[in-house]
Amino acid sequence: MSMSLCSAAEYLKGHDRFLILTHKNPDGDTIGSAAALCRALRCLGKEAYVYKNPGFTPRYSAFLEGMTAEEYMPDCIVAVDIADIKLLPSVCEKYADKISLAIDHHPTHRSFCENILLDADAAACGEIIFSLINSLGIEISLDIATALYVAVSTDTGCFLYSNTTPQTHKIAAALLECGVKTDLIHRDFFITKTRARLSIEAKLIDGMHFYCGGKAAVAKLSLALISSVHATEDDLDNIGSLTRSIEGAELGILIRELEDGSCKLSVRSGEGVNAAALCAHFGGGGHIRAAGCTINAPLDQAEAQVVAAVDSLKIFSD
Amino acid sequence: MSMSLCSAAEYLKGHDRFLILTHKNPDGDTIGSAAALCRALRCLGKEAYVYKNPGFTPRYSAFLEGMTAEEYMPDCIVAVDIADIKLLPSVCEKYADKISLAIDHHPTHRSFCENILLDADAAACGEIIFSLINSLGIEISLDIATALYVAVSTDTGCFLYSNTTPQTHKIAAALLECGVKTDLIHRDFFITKTRARLSIEAKLIDGMHFYCGGKAAVAKLSLALISSVHATEDDLDNIGSLTRSIEGAELGILIRELEDGSCKLSVRSGEGVNAAALCAHFGGGGHIRAAGCTINAPLDQAEAQVVAAVDSLKIFSD
Repeated sequence: MSMSLCSAAEYLKGHDRFLILTHKNPDGDTIGSAAALCRALRCLGKEAYVYKNPGFTPRYSAFLEGMTAEEYMPDCIVAVDIADIKLLPSVCEKYADKISLAIDHHPTHRSFCENILLDADAAACGEIIFSLINSLGIEISLDIATALYVAVSTDTGCFLYSNTTPQTHKIAAALLECGVKTDLIHRDFFITKTRARLSIEAKLIDGMHFYCGGKAAVAKLSLALISSVHATEDDLDNIGSLTRSIEGAELGILIRELEDGSCKLSVRSGEGVNAAALCAHFGGGGHIRAAGCTINAPLDQAEAQVVAAVDSLKIFSD
Repeated sequence: MSMSLCSAAEYLKGHDRFLILTHKNPDGDTIGSAAALCRALRCLGKEAYVYKNPGFTPRYSAFLEGMTAEEYMPDCIVAVDIADIKLLPSVCEKYADKISLAIDHHPTHRSFCENILLDADAAACGEIIFSLINSLGIEISLDIATALYVAVSTDTGCFLYSNTTPQTHKIAAALLECGVKTDLIHRDFFITKTRARLSIEAKLIDGMHFYCGGKAAVAKLSLALISSVHATEDDLDNIGSLTRSIEGAELGILIRELEDGSCKLSVRSGEGVNAAALCAHFGGGGHIRAAGCTINAPLDQAEAQVVAAVDSLKIFSD
């Protein structure tokens, strides 16, 4: 059943012991939303915990201090920012059929529980939690505001992504008025990079090839490069976006060598250039501006194949 | 005389022909502010032009189309975002003693004309222009909103810098409600970099040295490196900030080789680390978090000297 903010608020008020679930590979939005909701429920005098997702990294620990639990018997399980039950971390699978409320903002949300509070226009789940906390009549404390700021800013690339709406900025204004100190958040999430990440970026840029008069940029990420700088998956997060940061490049392709000898391609594109069509040619898919596929060939051959496809599919003639 | 928004609005209404001046090395704030004010004055039925600053680059031309003039006899000259008369482009010096209204947001504003509309709490001059246009009772068109969004977003690093306030986000919300298309603005100003810039960054990262257990990062920008990628001054804009984007580095030092054989240092620091104290040691100065100085020695010797100074001045012991 799709719920309004008011009915979701009433539903929460009608329960006493809450467990909040976050998604696999947790990001700022799922964690910030969970932390804010957990604190808000505690303000109401409820018992509330966030299930200890094995993906929680040190960067997020501060926001969850004193709020995580592994063994806890709730009377209400809430999923935040989880678009599909498949995105539940495997350690949480025992709760899969016991979730009673899902709060989410993904247009692709696939219903997996009885009650759903969904707002597909919200840039971040944190925006919905902000409105829900207001509906609950709780004053937004600095801790809650900080968690919500992390949620909203990370899911919008600090207000840079096109999902940012007037409402996103209005919420940001309200959170800053609560006294959120953005300096450290911005530094940790948007400004600094690990040395391994910077080294990888430097080497990818150095070895980048340009095609179609500079309109297509191709970078190759080899296993040797990854191991030479001891890069973790965290260091490689969203590395594909690097290929689209070059002036003039309307199509950015990152080709990553996999352990099994095949290659995974991350394709990003600008207006009028269809990344999904290019990836569909290799059996992959995605969105018009961001898509992916796998090519069963070594790095250099994969590059040759994708460059040939850009030409044969007339990717730039639309 | 310091003016209120209302008195500045009345002052503008009392004149008919306007020339708007921007500062030397014009940025998004001075240009966006000028474009928005010029359009707003035209909405009031006034004649208004922006003086053709030789620093206007192609990236900004679209915002100023049909609004620039070189020879124009106004009855009111307005300076926007100009903190000091020394920052007037040399071609505008003829107007230096004829400016009748200065609109600015710099706390360091040095008065140079009779009427000043100053708000030192505003993150961007564009924020003041936004309020002024509201005071004038003009509806904000899409063109005006776009110019103001460029002003506000560029001066706050797209809401990332610590000058961003709740008011900044409220204004951004209002501008997005006017229909501003942020995609291309974000791409041109925040996402893409020239190939020359990316090459320079890649090579600086590759050759970076770390000291004090990784807390200090030193990058050296040689004349040879600059010429090898044909980098322009535009490509090198704010390149010093790169040294502070490394996880763990509390002090970032960029040493740039100059034509006369000396070196210019750009020093950036994190909380509790005094960049100005380090630069003062070499006769330079600046702010606690961002300072600069010159060392009369070749690159490698300058590096050795500054690293020795970090140690002798106990920069990390505060």
